[in-house]
Amino acid sequence: MNSDEFRKYGHEIVEWIARYYENIEQYPVRSRSLPGSVKARLPLAPPAESQPFDTLLKDFNEIIMPGITHWQSPNFFAYFPANSSPPSVLAEMLTAALGTQCMIWETSPAAAELEERMMEWLRDMTGLPDYFEGVIQDTASTATLVALLTAREKVSSFRSNSSGLFTSGILRVYCSSQSHSSVEKGSGIAGIGRENVVRIPVRKDYSLDPDELRKAIDHDLAAGYTPCCVVATIGTTGTTAIDPLRLIGEICSEKGIWLHVDAALGGTALLLPEMRWMADGIEYVDSFVFNPHKWMFTNFDCSAYFVRDAASLIRTFDILPEYLRTRTRGKVNDYRDWGIQLGRRFRALKLWAVIRTYGVDQLRSKIREHLRLAKILSGMIEADKEFRIMAPVHLNTVCFRWQPPGITDDEADRMNEKLNHALNDSGKIYLTHTRADGRYILRMVTAQTAVEERHVTEAWRLIRETASAISSQRGAVDID
Amino acid sequence: MNSDEFRKYGHEIVEWIARYYENIEQYPVRSRSLPGSVKARLPLAPPAESQPFDTLLKDFNEIIMPGITHWQSPNFFAYFPANSSPPSVLAEMLTAALGTQCMIWETSPAAAELEERMMEWLRDMTGLPDYFEGVIQDTASTATLVALLTAREKVSSFRSNSSGLFTSGILRVYCSSQSHSSVEKGSGIAGIGRENVVRIPVRKDYSLDPDELRKAIDHDLAAGYTPCCVVATIGTTGTTAIDPLRLIGEICSEKGIWLHVDAALGGTALLLPEMRWMADGIEYVDSFVFNPHKWMFTNFDCSAYFVRDAASLIRTFDILPEYLRTRTRGKVNDYRDWGIQLGRRFRALKLWAVIRTYGVDQLRSKIREHLRLAKILSGMIEADKEFRIMAPVHLNTVCFRWQPPGITDDEADRMNEKLNHALNDSGKIYLTHTRADGRYILRMVTAQTAVEERHVTEAWRLIRETASAISSQRGAVDID
Repeated sequence: MNSDEFRKYGHEIVEWIARYYENIEQYPVRSRSLPGSVKARLPLAPPAESQPFDTLLKDFNEIIMPGITHWQSPNFFAYFPANSSPPSVLAEMLTAALGTQCMIWETSPAAAELEERMMEWLRDMTGLPDYFEGVIQDTASTATLVALLTAREKVSSFRSNSSGLFTSGILRVYCSSQSHSSVEKGSGIAGIGRENVVRIPVRKDYSLDPDELRKAIDHDLAAGYTPCCVVATIGTTGTTAIDPLRLIGEICSEKGIWLHVDAALGGTALLLPEMRWMADGIEYVDSFVFNPHKWMFTNFDCSAYFVRDAASLIRTFDILPEYLRTRTRGKVNDYRDWGIQLGRRFRALKLWAVIRTYGVDQLRSKIREHLRLAKILSGMIEADKEFRIMAPVHLNTVCFRWQPPGITDDEADRMNEKLNHALNDSGKIYLTHTRADGRYILRMVTAQTAVEERHVTEAWRLIRETASAISSQRGAVDID
Repeated sequence: MNSDEFRKYGHEIVEWIARYYENIEQYPVRSRSLPGSVKARLPLAPPAESQPFDTLLKDFNEIIMPGITHWQSPNFFAYFPANSSPPSVLAEMLTAALGTQCMIWETSPAAAELEERMMEWLRDMTGLPDYFEGVIQDTASTATLVALLTAREKVSSFRSNSSGLFTSGILRVYCSSQSHSSVEKGSGIAGIGRENVVRIPVRKDYSLDPDELRKAIDHDLAAGYTPCCVVATIGTTGTTAIDPLRLIGEICSEKGIWLHVDAALGGTALLLPEMRWMADGIEYVDSFVFNPHKWMFTNFDCSAYFVRDAASLIRTFDILPEYLRTRTRGKVNDYRDWGIQLGRRFRALKLWAVIRTYGVDQLRSKIREHLRLAKILSGMIEADKEFRIMAPVHLNTVCFRWQPPGITDDEADRMNEKLNHALNDSGKIYLTHTRADGRYILRMVTAQTAVEERHVTEAWRLIRETASAISSQRGAVDID
């Protein structure tokens, strides 16, 4: 593909993207593809000969697009926001073109130094302590694994990395019953074992119960186990519960246990001074992760990981083969030593583009608006006798359940599941579910880049209307 | 940023990219930035107010670009190729715009199914057995870690993931002394311990010595250790050595040990039927990784990981919290179960764009050309009495050393280091070094997307000229 062709198709794609964002509400939010339907339209064998890029774009529109679930749609209320934004897309274009490898400083000094500065900006924007040093990881799963590994090394005086865990005492990790699955997955990967993750019971608001944490740690100590790490969450995946950081931190400090905070979703809200209560106790924290690629309008992947003691982090991950020795070693940040992967994309550029294009003020007002939308939605739900709010609404997610009077809990579970599928099958909105206390509950996240109040009120109208239709069918079936 | 602004800057950036590739030879290949110089020009604090995108682009050109090392330059002969290409950049634009999360099938069916088909294409293009199933990982470091973890689970009857390694017998991993540092790093992460990586001596051509491997395994078995995994390499990082797969495979098969192949660099050459000898013995292989993001013109990150027994892979990584349960579970590939991260980018799109735009034939001829350039270069070096080829040239990398007659080995080490720095400081070419048998050697990789014979011959002219200048200075100093 020569320069002229690149220009032609590049400009076409820019127009395509602009139109995509303009018309995004016209697509069914969750793809209606049936399993295997996309694959069936893709040839079994790769082409031997070069194909014009036109044909690729045609197939992209006809085969791929119907199989896309539109995460950028303002009617996407599912899972969590995975927000892109125009400045972030523009920056990704430059990142792709440069194709620069950011494993060490020398392989792209500007990328390393922009990353360093952007992590300082994010740290200050979220009010984290100034002794934290940051690095971009791909995901919070990876960042939490990195925290577990650093904690594992520290508690074993940096012996487990070298000798393995075979002769070590049994290490234990603590998190709430609502914590993200990555804590268990990471503990399995780290050789600690998923069974050594102690799931601490939660309080009524689904936040970790610190008394139960203390009991569990004391129990483990008495049994001869070695506490390794506590993972507290600011904004759990299921219900966005906020664990009580100060109370947890006091226990960790007393017992000398690494405290990692998973604020993958919730961290972005720390841009707002009025939300900083969530981070009360941050002085006890050893490591902290939040995902600008979730709620801060920055393309996936971009997970901001902060650590109090960068030297321990580096000691956990550095390895220096001859072919990576450079003259600047030790004078600069070689970020390959700050995590698992050697190869790294130039991800700081999109953060720079997003923060400068919106400015901190606009970022704050967008996040405030999302919090306001969640309150509006929860207000409407509370006012409806057939629905119940199922968890405190601290952030951008409303957990609720359809429970008309006189319906058993089990029957309501089935009705909510049916409601969820009917809504998602409609293509008009997309929301997902979780379970809390064994009950099926719906989650609606009001934090998409382009979401406005009208999307939320229309979604709520649709939910009520669909519930009502299911009720009538149910009545009809009962009569049969 | 509204649609019009996005269009304006999007088109500007397309033009910028086209010009960048047209003029790329005018940039110093390795950035001349001094440590701290970029960061010093970036404000300490993020802006409160929105800034026009113009100012970002201006700063990108003035502050960032001088700090970029140009991996896409045809005069980049360092490390390894990290090739981008126009169709790959175009696909990355679409990926960024969609911002789709590819963690499970339902969160973007087309992405999951295109990934499945692309992995089949790559498998068939490289002649891998048709029972291999593939998944895109971010890097070969991650893929090798994934292989080590799956091997760890299999050898422990899937107990280490759940219970940890605390009561397990000591596991051992084997690779050659030339294998990539990710084997040790991954073994540390997996809780096996870096010290339990047995570095097997190599033969004269820097390939793993299978007799030594057998000895090491027998020794470990007699000592009560449990062999867990052997990592063979097709194209080592230092000298692109090719480990003898069949002989290694026979030992692994006899002893029942997981065999992982790190073909991160070399795998792309398997597109050429005449290079398939490197994969002789593939029937013994349990897992295999190669990086289209290195030598196959596909933007980083895109690492193709293949596994014989996908069920074991999935059993190692799957974890199913309620909020990820879907109706299609079990009927489709949910790729979050095939690796470490939960969140995943839509990386199959760029593979599709690259393979279709070039077609298999053009990909093959480009790779053949790179092999030819390496032979031309090594021919020129061999013909020069002051230089020596230091390792067999199988692939795209030529390892050589400046060793004028009458110079001691230690003195030559210093001269080669000086030569390397002088060349890189010139900005005209960029090449890196390694050590083999304790000696400093230069590596020159002839596999950049846009490299032509003229770049290689000009680089060689520059190397000789620079060496000659160093020689004269040295003479002058001696006279002093």
